Amino acid sequence: MRQKPFLHTILSPKLLDVYDVTDSLVVIIDVFRATSTIATALHNGAKEIIPVDNVDECIAIGKATPNSITAGERDGKVIEGLQYGNSPTDYPRSFIENKTLVLTTTNGTKFLHMSLKKGASEIITGSFPNLSAVCDYLLNTNKNVFLGCSAWKDKFNLEDTLFAGVVIQKVKQNFTVHCDSSLMAEEMYQLHQHEMKSFIRNTTHWHRLAQYGLEEDMEYCVSIDTANVLPKYNGRALVIN
Amino acid sequence: MRQKPFLHTILSPKLLDVYDVTDSLVVIIDVFRATSTIATALHNGAKEIIPVDNVDECIAIGKATPNSITAGERDGKVIEGLQYGNSPTDYPRSFIENKTLVLTTTNGTKFLHMSLKKGASEIITGSFPNLSAVCDYLLNTNKNVFLGCSAWKDKFNLEDTLFAGVVIQKVKQNFTVHCDSSLMAEEMYQLHQHEMKSFIRNTTHWHRLAQYGLEEDMEYCVSIDTANVLPKYNGRALVIN
Repeated sequence: MRQKPFLHTILSPKLLDVYDVTDSLVVIIDVFRATSTIATALHNGAKEIIPVDNVDECIAIGKATPNSITAGERDGKVIEGLQYGNSPTDYPRSFIENKTLVLTTTNGTKFLHMSLKKGASEIITGSFPNLSAVCDYLLNTNKNVFLGCSAWKDKFNLEDTLFAGVVIQKVKQNFTVHCDSSLMAEEMYQLHQHEMKSFIRNTTHWHRLAQYGLEEDMEYCVSIDTANVLPKYNGRALVIN
Repeated sequence: MRQKPFLHTILSPKLLDVYDVTDSLVVIIDVFRATSTIATALHNGAKEIIPVDNVDECIAIGKATPNSITAGERDGKVIEGLQYGNSPTDYPRSFIENKTLVLTTTNGTKFLHMSLKKGASEIITGSFPNLSAVCDYLLNTNKNVFLGCSAWKDKFNLEDTLFAGVVIQKVKQNFTVHCDSSLMAEEMYQLHQHEMKSFIRNTTHWHRLAQYGLEEDMEYCVSIDTANVLPKYNGRALVIN
């Protein structure tokens, strides 16, 4: 019998070095809010999303790309020099259709670039709004998979862990899962799956963003399959697979 | 009202940089098996335990210290050049009483030295065998506290997390706890507190050590208050506080 590929969960970008992601598929997870926004913008017709890991590059690529907008937030506010924020509600179809979104965020876009540098051969992004698309894709891969939680400035966070947990619950029969991070993530999801919208109010990130009035944003970000497309990195941008 | 000191949980030595441990109390946790062995050896009358972060230093300090023994394991075997292993059962009173134990381990002793370099002002070690001693001490400190999980070669592990969880459950009323790692640790402990001996069989570390026949060792390492002393670092060695 063929050995199943393995699946690991990486709880922080700071722990990426501990794993060998060469030739593997990495799922970038940044539930609040980068990967939720990425799925939503693509679902609403964005042409592509160019993830960049710093503001200067974001501005430069924005200028060089026709019909593009630049976006990024720090502490709940649009970064100076950029045009839009990191909220899924900023990107309805009426606004984003056919546009290129050039996006930089605190955690998720940084982790994506780190994974590329470490030799990952395939990158997709995951969030509750595109849960089924992610799981369908994973159920059809033969590669080893790393669920990459973007965390908050390298600190473990629960919302990304819960998303890793639901993915594991849904795809584990196809993988060798032997990793304490994955076991914990799945158990934490099982424990809270029927009360996600109330449980996330206990997370540190909820408290951080709620002071900017972003409660509805966060509730949207734990809603399942509301923007069910698969963003995949093509070497330059995330596009629908 | 005076602000309570805060309590954070650090899930891997690799995440130590993300926190500011200056002037804080760090509890080094290495359940399988360094901190369980440290509590046990001191409880059985060891004079002191000198934690060192490499084998050469272990040998050198052992030679220079009267009535001392050197100890350390890699992959379940005594390291070449050292005399004893990292199992609590290696240190009954008949053997260890009044001796100095010079100890190097893969995870725990390394994390202790990292914490010192980062400016921690107080270091104690925690394990299920000395749970109550740790909690009593924490309930009487005014310092900020970091529960430092030694992990396995920087990878998150469950047994250290579960110990952080039980400590949080018992001392949280005295601290400001606002940290997703701590919330997760406490919930994982609550989930498994009545079936610890069976649950730990699911951890990766169990599988790693069970192949060396160390099952009884690990069951001992999740037994509460069997060696209930408080090992505290005095600048050179861990001694009973």
